Amino acid sequence: MEAGMVFTQADAETLQHILRWRRDVRHFRPDPVDEAVLERLRAAMDYVPSVGNSRPWRVIRVTDKALRDTVRADFLRCNAEAAASYPPELRAAYLALKLAGLDRAPVQLAIFTSIDPAEGHGLGRQTLPQTLRQSTAMAVHTLWLAARVENLGLGLVSILDPSAMERLFAVPPEWEWATYICLGHPEQSDDTPLLHRAGWQDNTRTVWEER
Amino acid sequence: MEAGMVFTQADAETLQHILRWRRDVRHFRPDPVDEAVLERLRAAMDYVPSVGNSRPWRVIRVTDKALRDTVRADFLRCNAEAAASYPPELRAAYLALKLAGLDRAPVQLAIFTSIDPAEGHGLGRQTLPQTLRQSTAMAVHTLWLAARVENLGLGLVSILDPSAMERLFAVPPEWEWATYICLGHPEQSDDTPLLHRAGWQDNTRTVWEER
Repeated sequence: MEAGMVFTQADAETLQHILRWRRDVRHFRPDPVDEAVLERLRAAMDYVPSVGNSRPWRVIRVTDKALRDTVRADFLRCNAEAAASYPPELRAAYLALKLAGLDRAPVQLAIFTSIDPAEGHGLGRQTLPQTLRQSTAMAVHTLWLAARVENLGLGLVSILDPSAMERLFAVPPEWEWATYICLGHPEQSDDTPLLHRAGWQDNTRTVWEER
Repeated sequence: MEAGMVFTQADAETLQHILRWRRDVRHFRPDPVDEAVLERLRAAMDYVPSVGNSRPWRVIRVTDKALRDTVRADFLRCNAEAAASYPPELRAAYLALKLAGLDRAPVQLAIFTSIDPAEGHGLGRQTLPQTLRQSTAMAVHTLWLAARVENLGLGLVSILDPSAMERLFAVPPEWEWATYICLGHPEQSDDTPLLHRAGWQDNTRTVWEER
């Protein structure tokens, strides 16, 4: 058995801290992230679980300014539409939330799922193709925790048009849009998540109902 | 700023170990898991990220023997169908894999996603309802890592008929099947994942393609 395979209570507490202090960050400092740190984040994704070890996550690191500007314009359009769908009493609260760090995040990643990967030979996904998308979500979550423990902030941008994104990045037909990631040094550390502080939604308790 | 919000290189290494030694476990010892440990795992799910803090994961802890037997029968049926779909040269390798710990795992959880949760007021999911399912996948991944650091094994069973599971557990119409979890003390620790050892699928490297 290799060293490190048995974990201690101190290790469990470290994981608890990482989970507890993870934030959806939308306020970034513009200074770049060390490439060695980014390589560690990329490498963390090599250990993500996936159905049949199919590894369906596909990552594009978006550095081109025109691509970034188009993503941001799509966000602003989709966000305005979302705001308009709320009744007036919620709309002001919605518009007061900063929902994306696209204006300043130094590292931006477009994430897709291959819905027909060669890896894994189809194992485990015949009754539930959804498992491929679950695998990509776990890859994003892995990156999120790995970034947090490097004291970096990460935020997901879900308010984008999936078809527009697939066209913008001209991806193969088997790549399906998953999410867009903003990554960088956070402007501040906050012991209270933004949506709690803004009064939008507090945590409700996870229940394990017994049957 | 509260204690623990700034992480060290040692913390990053702990997370790397947890990610690296996480396994999809299908071989369990039948002895029960301490309820205090299970409560820590449940509590870890309170910190899972979710779109608009909508917290759409729904968890049923399955203890009833008849329910467990029905889940296992569905798995055996779906697995036989999956095996039959492989060409002969892969079928033997497929059938040699143990793909579920349903026979012995002391803790079993049925996981669903509410696709219309009240929490979050719809924030962030109007262009991409898929984000709710991503949130549930992140909840499952959180549980997986939290179990690993308690030296417990966890395995997902994806080879089940989603509609049959929704009927079996008689869930509300807005609950959508996500996955089934087996949890317990692993029979052994293995430094090599099962699908690698069996020669089914090795790891391929995660690429961050630049654009």
